[in-house]
Amino acid sequence: MHVEQIERAPLDPAFVTALQQRFGTAVHMSDAMRLHHGSSEAHFAPMLPDAVVFARSTEEVVDLVRLCAAAKVPIVPFGAGTSIEGNTLAVHGGVSVDLSEMTQIVSINAEDFDCTVQAGVRREQLNEHIRDLGLFFPIDPGANATIGGMAATRASGTNAVRYGTMREAVLSLRVVTPDGREIRTSRRARKSAAGYDLTRLFVGSEGTLGIITEVTLRLHGIPEAISSAVCSFQTLNGAVDTVVQAIQIGVPLARVEILDDMQIKAVNAWSKLDYPELTTLFFEFHGSPSYVDEQAETVRELAAANGGGDFRWSNLPEERSKLWKARHEAYYAAVNLRPGAVGWATDVCVPISRLAQCIGETKADLQASSVPATILGHVGDGNFHVVFSIDPESEAELAEVSAINARMVERALAMDGTCTGEHGIGIGKQDWLVAELGDAVELMRTLKHALDPDNLFNPGKIFAF
Amino acid sequence: MHVEQIERAPLDPAFVTALQQRFGTAVHMSDAMRLHHGSSEAHFAPMLPDAVVFARSTEEVVDLVRLCAAAKVPIVPFGAGTSIEGNTLAVHGGVSVDLSEMTQIVSINAEDFDCTVQAGVRREQLNEHIRDLGLFFPIDPGANATIGGMAATRASGTNAVRYGTMREAVLSLRVVTPDGREIRTSRRARKSAAGYDLTRLFVGSEGTLGIITEVTLRLHGIPEAISSAVCSFQTLNGAVDTVVQAIQIGVPLARVEILDDMQIKAVNAWSKLDYPELTTLFFEFHGSPSYVDEQAETVRELAAANGGGDFRWSNLPEERSKLWKARHEAYYAAVNLRPGAVGWATDVCVPISRLAQCIGETKADLQASSVPATILGHVGDGNFHVVFSIDPESEAELAEVSAINARMVERALAMDGTCTGEHGIGIGKQDWLVAELGDAVELMRTLKHALDPDNLFNPGKIFAF
Repeated sequence: MHVEQIERAPLDPAFVTALQQRFGTAVHMSDAMRLHHGSSEAHFAPMLPDAVVFARSTEEVVDLVRLCAAAKVPIVPFGAGTSIEGNTLAVHGGVSVDLSEMTQIVSINAEDFDCTVQAGVRREQLNEHIRDLGLFFPIDPGANATIGGMAATRASGTNAVRYGTMREAVLSLRVVTPDGREIRTSRRARKSAAGYDLTRLFVGSEGTLGIITEVTLRLHGIPEAISSAVCSFQTLNGAVDTVVQAIQIGVPLARVEILDDMQIKAVNAWSKLDYPELTTLFFEFHGSPSYVDEQAETVRELAAANGGGDFRWSNLPEERSKLWKARHEAYYAAVNLRPGAVGWATDVCVPISRLAQCIGETKADLQASSVPATILGHVGDGNFHVVFSIDPESEAELAEVSAINARMVERALAMDGTCTGEHGIGIGKQDWLVAELGDAVELMRTLKHALDPDNLFNPGKIFAF
Repeated sequence: MHVEQIERAPLDPAFVTALQQRFGTAVHMSDAMRLHHGSSEAHFAPMLPDAVVFARSTEEVVDLVRLCAAAKVPIVPFGAGTSIEGNTLAVHGGVSVDLSEMTQIVSINAEDFDCTVQAGVRREQLNEHIRDLGLFFPIDPGANATIGGMAATRASGTNAVRYGTMREAVLSLRVVTPDGREIRTSRRARKSAAGYDLTRLFVGSEGTLGIITEVTLRLHGIPEAISSAVCSFQTLNGAVDTVVQAIQIGVPLARVEILDDMQIKAVNAWSKLDYPELTTLFFEFHGSPSYVDEQAETVRELAAANGGGDFRWSNLPEERSKLWKARHEAYYAAVNLRPGAVGWATDVCVPISRLAQCIGETKADLQASSVPATILGHVGDGNFHVVFSIDPESEAELAEVSAINARMVERALAMDGTCTGEHGIGIGKQDWLVAELGDAVELMRTLKHALDPDNLFNPGKIFAF
């Protein structure tokens, strides 16, 4: 296994002793544990921490941060490890603090549609827990990520077109800052104009400004009625135009996902399905029974006018589950187009008026490439991914994909879009961040330096600094 | 006129000469102009700037910031002057930069539901401009504020229950920072995970971190159908419970406002109306024609079950205009319960499960007070205001109102609410901010110091620092 890492001194034995005195068997230094915490789901080479510590409370995180700060040891927060821009790799080594055992649901306020959970709670655990209360948490990035990790990455996913991203879903955070203090960023009121929006500052900061230990989330009532639909199209443009028109006339689509012909082929093989191997839209509608029918009928008409085929509509939960299970597995389905391949998921997002052109030009690039690749995306937000299935032994394939990704980002930026809709910067998008926001990145560095002057919190992420 | 101000040296004549050389007749130093820019709509004594400069472009703001930075002169942004926590008062003197002549609508992307405007555009101007495109901008704080001021204050208002606040409405900002640089905080994509959320950092920062010169806003399609309704209740609880229940079963109320009996009395007198002088809810419903009817019918049933009287429903635009004009004038109606009075508007926001109790206890305080006062609020968000009509000559009244406000804030904080739902901190809520967020305020100060080390951008706001 090829490991990439910045040269550094080994951990001071006195520091290790102090760690072990405070955390006992929660400290791990085995190669296997370090490799697990220093690897990612994407194509990046591993970068290992020197130690892994499992934290079980905010108080433990405070103590760990103070120990690390005193010894000037980097600290990298780790949840489910499902991020895909290398966001949890230990670029400068140090301690990986694993929050996945912080799985307590601290409180649920059903009447207020909110709850507070520890950072290690996973979204599926939360949804199972609150289902009987008639509530659900809509943010769904596919992977069963931790809520803390989703907040740190500003994740979103299939429901964002209707319910927003983690930016909108997080009401308040409990955070341990680099100086070893614990703060709460906001009260539980739905809105507030009380000073700087620290909640939003930490959401998406990827562990570089603070370690999120608890998250207060907005929840939603499970809709009275939910229906889903699938429709395939002869052309990419027909599918994208259907969605843009539906949004423009005000249909509150709860989910709308695009899968190109290659992605459908992958999904059919992986999830044992038999969708026509054409560009396809997956829809979900939420509301009262009559309103859900009205939405589906409107979209059916738009799809037909844009060259859509059979509009397969269903209000059966099992049909819906099959559909979204296939969508959730789409990344793995795409990567496994070739046995033994590794994945690389791109992540541009553009204003929706530019989406058809952006996807169309990208598709042309893919057709000219030798690397198997699929397109899937949250088309209602203007956000889509290409998933490449790369031979890990081939430098040439990596270079080819890197060049296609560069063209995609340049195309998105030229359309006033972003290099990352939902995966974050990590180590994979640092140059593109500067291309996207220019001097604003200097301001971000100023904030980072002010809060973390020793650069110990997830160093090497967002900026190389 | 009693003016309160921190002692300071007069402006350096060389600085004044430099200002005049660069800005010519856009520089004003008359007492009248300084008083206008140093006064507020609320009960605070004026605090005058030493000079007023009207800026017409981002480039002019950059030049002004550089001149002020070099001479270490404070700079206070000013829009419509409708803020009510003293947010634009020149605590330390210096230059008030008036952006109200920056009224250009820079671009409209109808297909993407967004637009970019200069900071001085007012919300009514924007809505008139985009109406023919079938679009509207929903954030409505009542006053015809500037978009820049609304962003700086994280304003919201009557539509927030459905459409969110300025936090959700702003896609991107053009900002001049204290070091005289101009940045753009984000691209125009609907969502992004590209580094720290600078957009949200500047939204609500009240001019203390940067001067907003352009705002890119999310717009919405004018709904196919809009209807409104009015319903009065025998009890405050009945009104609040109706709203909480409607939200809990998923009715997407576009607006829902509460006015207590005193506020209705004031509105009847000021706007020449004849509503029953009881606690009253004003509703607005958006959607397809059938969905709007369905929403109104659901709410009608809930209101009846909670002791509501006649549910006066209408889909006539003129009825709706009358209703919301009365609501928009409610603050002035309340202040003018006594001729020559000045207003003091409180602004707590609590989780909605606590709202009935919070309003009820507040109402009891008001009934025991000698100062005329009304309650009105954005009840769907848990946010409400008491508007006091104070004799400006009476120290005793000011002290009494101050004590009631303190009890309100303490009550809201005890319910995990906020001291300010939408008016900001300004000079009026600084101690309450610390009571609300504790150590997090120290982190805010660290950010302020990092971006504005000489404390020249709206000094004395949010924190006394």
